[in-house]
Amino acid sequence: MRARVTIIDVAAAAGVSVGTASKALNGRGQLRQDTRDRVAAAAERLGFQANSLARGLLSGRSFTVGLITTDSFGRFSIPVMLGAEDALGAGQMSVFLCDGRGDPIRERHYLQTLLSRRVDGIIVTGRRADPRPPLGIDLPVPVVYALCQSADPADCSVISDDDQVGRLAASHLLSVGRSRIGHITGPAGFLAVRRRSAGAQAVLKEAGMSFVDPGSQYGEWSEEWGRQATRILLRATPDVDAIFCGSDQLGRGVADALREAGRRVPDDVALVGVDNWEVMALACRPPLTTVDLQLQELGRSAAALLLDAIDGRPAAGVHTTPTRLVVRESTGALA
Amino acid sequence: MRARVTIIDVAAAAGVSVGTASKALNGRGQLRQDTRDRVAAAAERLGFQANSLARGLLSGRSFTVGLITTDSFGRFSIPVMLGAEDALGAGQMSVFLCDGRGDPIRERHYLQTLLSRRVDGIIVTGRRADPRPPLGIDLPVPVVYALCQSADPADCSVISDDDQVGRLAASHLLSVGRSRIGHITGPAGFLAVRRRSAGAQAVLKEAGMSFVDPGSQYGEWSEEWGRQATRILLRATPDVDAIFCGSDQLGRGVADALREAGRRVPDDVALVGVDNWEVMALACRPPLTTVDLQLQELGRSAAALLLDAIDGRPAAGVHTTPTRLVVRESTGALA
Repeated sequence: MRARVTIIDVAAAAGVSVGTASKALNGRGQLRQDTRDRVAAAAERLGFQANSLARGLLSGRSFTVGLITTDSFGRFSIPVMLGAEDALGAGQMSVFLCDGRGDPIRERHYLQTLLSRRVDGIIVTGRRADPRPPLGIDLPVPVVYALCQSADPADCSVISDDDQVGRLAASHLLSVGRSRIGHITGPAGFLAVRRRSAGAQAVLKEAGMSFVDPGSQYGEWSEEWGRQATRILLRATPDVDAIFCGSDQLGRGVADALREAGRRVPDDVALVGVDNWEVMALACRPPLTTVDLQLQELGRSAAALLLDAIDGRPAAGVHTTPTRLVVRESTGALA
Repeated sequence: MRARVTIIDVAAAAGVSVGTASKALNGRGQLRQDTRDRVAAAAERLGFQANSLARGLLSGRSFTVGLITTDSFGRFSIPVMLGAEDALGAGQMSVFLCDGRGDPIRERHYLQTLLSRRVDGIIVTGRRADPRPPLGIDLPVPVVYALCQSADPADCSVISDDDQVGRLAASHLLSVGRSRIGHITGPAGFLAVRRRSAGAQAVLKEAGMSFVDPGSQYGEWSEEWGRQATRILLRATPDVDAIFCGSDQLGRGVADALREAGRRVPDDVALVGVDNWEVMALACRPPLTTVDLQLQELGRSAAALLLDAIDGRPAAGVHTTPTRLVVRESTGALA
């Protein structure tokens, strides 16, 4: 380790006072250009780095934002974080990471820490669209909720367009000629699950159809449930020719159960999943057509809204970001 | 949003000067106890939060550490980060998050940002044990490499005990009575892959055995390779009664291929994976016995070593952390 180069070293090397060196490095005050150049050259030669802490105190901004996750950086928070990091501009704003782990006490503690560190704003990420209690009341900095929704309508939240997810899936299955469409999905308690189902149903209704199994198959987010629900669906409606699966994980279970029941995908039954979680969608046999939630875009939007709010232009309400169909072999559209 | 409460507000509410309020809140100087109490009460009533930025300038420490990941917070970095966050003590040290994305230029940029923010130390996380170039030369703060290894032996690195991974897997297969043991794993270019193989081979050798297939099955980290390698192994050595799989993802592919070849797991062939990646190990049919790398423990160790280094007690060299066997149905030991 080497001792840090301080502004005192730079001033000495440039043959000026510390005050002059400071002015030169911060571009302030009345100085001759050759003085500024000499200080800049000395700073570069010595590898001097301006002290962001001190600069933050002067500007009243820390150029940091806090990022509180609720799912231990699970596969939902990660792309959101990546997108936010992109939008905040590497090196312009730094991100303080806090893992709330779904624990309100831990979250409150982190909020205090972030405020004491004078962050300019906070992003809270989640993994479901259902309204959650706001992070705090009357907070001194703006907060944006990403992939979750504050119960306070005055807050700013960004979630994916789950109605569109269902519409994209159903429209695609219709476009490849399917007409006996089943639905196997996650817990009915999830707002996103209900919205995706409703979006698909709206498209089917426009085409004069409905899901073949009137009691939709709600269950847990697991491959096991995907397999089990498929066996139930095949008994109830053996002539099903497509299944809209509420996640890629479910879709993979559905594909396995269909194969074990002697049904070919996509020839006999076409499949669409949701998430574009590649470890599931690509390992599925055959690879799964799916709706990508574009979570990185969602993170970018959330960060952009936060920067606007920091600049005094808050945007209250729930914002949705677009999703995208990714076509693979499970709907036969590539053949 | 509410204006921030400043120390000026606290001083006014307590009826003291700003200097006195500052001394009282920082526990410094000569003050009467009732003055301290009055200031503390005013601060609490107003919801005053001490300014960490200013405190950092006084103490010469920022109480922040940087965390640079190389795999976009993939499933390897995440548990390491969680462990590090635990060890750093929520609220004691805050973590600046930087996603290097495996790009040396991006990493260098982040290094400069972190140094300019006066972090007290830096943790670099990776996803493979192979030596990597050091983050920088003569850095002014300590650096610890977690789940990766600096090529400079003077640096401090923490990786999992991959020799032990192989030993645990092979010992367990021997303990459940298997003697015709095959090996299907990832790229031979990975140091961890070679160490795990060597650890297993050492245990087999002690028992007077070796892998049934002398040319070990090195390939890519995918279920598809697990299936393909299984078909090759079954052709070459049809009497194989156990397979040590280099990852849970491979193990899942192996299990599928065995089932499709009419072999029962564990009755005919027992399986052990590596990672304890639950989405793979639990979804495997049957659930997979595996070696857990205990990455969260690894992160905790790395953070503890960083704190020691910040306190002037650096520990150069490569440290390994223990792994743990998790027994499930795929080795029949539960029956």
